[in-house]
Amino acid sequence: MPTFVQILDFVGTFAFAISGIRLASAKRFDWFGAYVVGFVTAIGGGTIRDLLLDVTPGWMTDPIYLICTGLALLWVILWGKYLIHLHNTFFIFDSIGLALFTVVGLGKSLALGYPIWVAIIMGSITGAAGGVIRDVFINEIPLIFRKEIYAMACVVGGAVYWLCTITGSEPYVAQVVCGITVFITRILAVKFKICLPTLKGEEG
Amino acid sequence: MPTFVQILDFVGTFAFAISGIRLASAKRFDWFGAYVVGFVTAIGGGTIRDLLLDVTPGWMTDPIYLICTGLALLWVILWGKYLIHLHNTFFIFDSIGLALFTVVGLGKSLALGYPIWVAIIMGSITGAAGGVIRDVFINEIPLIFRKEIYAMACVVGGAVYWLCTITGSEPYVAQVVCGITVFITRILAVKFKICLPTLKGEEG
Amino acid sequence: MPTFVQILDFVGTFAFAISGIRLASAKRFDWFGAYVVGFVTAIGGGTIRDLLLDVTPGWMTDPIYLICTGLALLWVILWGKYLIHLHNTFFIFDSIGLALFTVVGLGKSLALGYPIWVAIIMGSITGAAGGVIRDVFINEIPLIFRKEIYAMACVVGGAVYWLCTITGSEPYVAQVVCGITVFITRILAVKFKICLPTLKGEEG
Repeated sequence: MPTFVQILDFVGTFAFAISGIRLASAKRFDWFGAYVVGFVTAIGGGTIRDLLLDVTPGWMTDPIYLICTGLALLWVILWGKYLIHLHNTFFIFDSIGLALFTVVGLGKSLALGYPIWVAIIMGSITGAAGGVIRDVFINEIPLIFRKEIYAMACVVGGAVYWLCTITGSEPYVAQVVCGITVFITRILAVKFKICLPTLKGEEG
Repeated sequence: MPTFVQILDFVGTFAFAISGIRLASAKRFDWFGAYVVGFVTAIGGGTIRDLLLDVTPGWMTDPIYLICTGLALLWVILWGKYLIHLHNTFFIFDSIGLALFTVVGLGKSLALGYPIWVAIIMGSITGAAGGVIRDVFINEIPLIFRKEIYAMACVVGGAVYWLCTITGSEPYVAQVVCGITVFITRILAVKFKICLPTLKGEEG
Repeated sequence: MPTFVQILDFVGTFAFAISGIRLASAKRFDWFGAYVVGFVTAIGGGTIRDLLLDVTPGWMTDPIYLICTGLALLWVILWGKYLIHLHNTFFIFDSIGLALFTVVGLGKSLALGYPIWVAIIMGSITGAAGGVIRDVFINEIPLIFRKEIYAMACVVGGAVYWLCTITGSEPYVAQVVCGITVFITRILAVKFKICLPTLKGEEG
C-alpha cells in the first residue's frame, strides 16, 4: 500500500512531467525528447539538491519516477489534445507537487544537519529548478524568473516552516503547515495575478 | 602502447570535440570559446554521469582529453574548410564515440553496484549529454530532442546488454555486443532516416 | 574584523551579482528572477568547482553571499539608472572578483591534492562559469565564448602561478602574482580591445 505522501509524490511527479512534455510538444520534440524533458522537469530540482547535499539522487534508487514519466508521456500521446480542458486540474496537481517537493527538500536538508536558511533554498530548488532546466532545454527564458509567484511560494513556505519551529511546533506540524502555505500562496498568486515588481532595464 | 579501447576513446573524444568546435565556429566563437565547447561536448556526458555516481570525473585524472581537444581545435583552425568533405568519416568516428562512451558509462555504473536500469541511463548520459550541453551553450534547442535516433541508440544498446547478461553472457561479450548495437543502430537510423514520432503541439 | 581577502571577496561577489542583475533587468525579470540570476552569477563558478572537487559549496556554509546579493539587488532597485555612470568602477570591481576567484579556486584545488593543470581549470571555472550560467539563464550565447579576453585571463594567471611555483616561489607570493596577472590581463585586454581570433564557419 502506498502511503499518503507517496501518492502526493506520484501526483506531483506526474504533473511536473506533463508540464515538461506539453512544452516539449509545442516545440515539436520527438517522443524521446519529450520524455527526457518531462523526466528532467520532474526530477531535475531534486537532483540538483542532492548533488549539492552530496547524496545519491532519489530517482537513482527507485524506478517509480521513470515509470511515472512514461505514463505521463503515454497520456499526452493518447489524450494530449484534451489536456487544455484539464488546465485547472493540472494546475492543482502542479501546485501539490510544488508544495510536496518543497517540504521534502527542506526536510532532507535539515535531516542532514544543514541550517534552516540552506534548507529553505534547497526546498525552493527542489520545487522550482526542474522547471528552469525544462525552459533551458526548450530554449526559452525560464518562466519563473519573469512571471507569477512560483519559487517565491517555496520561499514563503520555508519561512513559515522556520516560524513554526522557532515557536516550538513539532517537525510534522511544521511540514504540513509549510506545504499548505506553498500550495495556497501559489493558488492565490495565480487567482489574483499577484506578481513581483519587474526591474526596469537601463535602456528603458 | 595504448590499448584498443584507449584508441577508440581517443577517436571518439576527437570526433565529439570536432562536433562542438564546428558548431561553435558556425556561431563565430573565438578560439577559446570553441575549445571550451569542444571540450564540454567531449567530456560533458561523462562528467554529469560521474557527478551523479559521486566519483571524480575522468578528465580530472588524465590530461589526454584536454590534449585531444587541443588537437581537434588545431585541426579545425588548419583544415576546417575541408571538414565538409570528411563528413562521412566524422560521422563514423562520432558513432564510434557514442558506442564506446555508452559501454564505458554502463560498465562503470554496474561496477559501482547500481542496478541495470540506472546503468542504461548512465550509459545514455555518457553518450548523449555532452551534445546537449553543447547545444545549450550555442543557444540552440538540443538536436537529440528533435531529430534522428541518437540517445535512443544508447538505450537500445543498453537493453541489448541487459538481454545478454540475463541470458548468461560474459560481461566482456555483453559489452562488445552492446557497443556494436549502438554503432549499427546509429548508422542505420541515419542511413534510412529513421525517426521517432513527433508530438503535436496543442495549438496545431 | 574582516580580513583583506574577505573584503576583496565581498567586492567581487557584489560586482558579479550586479552584472547578473543588470542583464536580468534588461530582460524584464522580476525581483526574484533578478536575485536568482545575480546569485548564480556570483556563486555559480565556485559551485561547479566544488561539485567537481566533491566538497560542500562555499555559499552553503556562510550566508554572506546571499546577503551580498540582496544588497546588490537593493542597489539596482534604488540606483539602477545611475549604474551606467559607474561603468568603470564596476569594471574594476568585476576584475577584482575575477582575479580573486581564480586564486581561490586554484588554491583550493591544490590544497585538495589535485595537479596544477586541474587547479588552473578550476581557477578558470571559479572565475568564469558563473557568467556562463547567467547567460544561459537570460537565453543568450555566453559572452565569454565570443568576446574579449575573460576566462583566458584566468588561464594566463594560472600559468603564471605555475611558473612561480616551479621557480621556487612561496605559495603566498605565487597567489598574489597570479591574482595581479589576472587583473592586469583583463584590464589591458579591454583597454586595448585585445581579442582572440574567431573561427570562420564552414559556410562563410
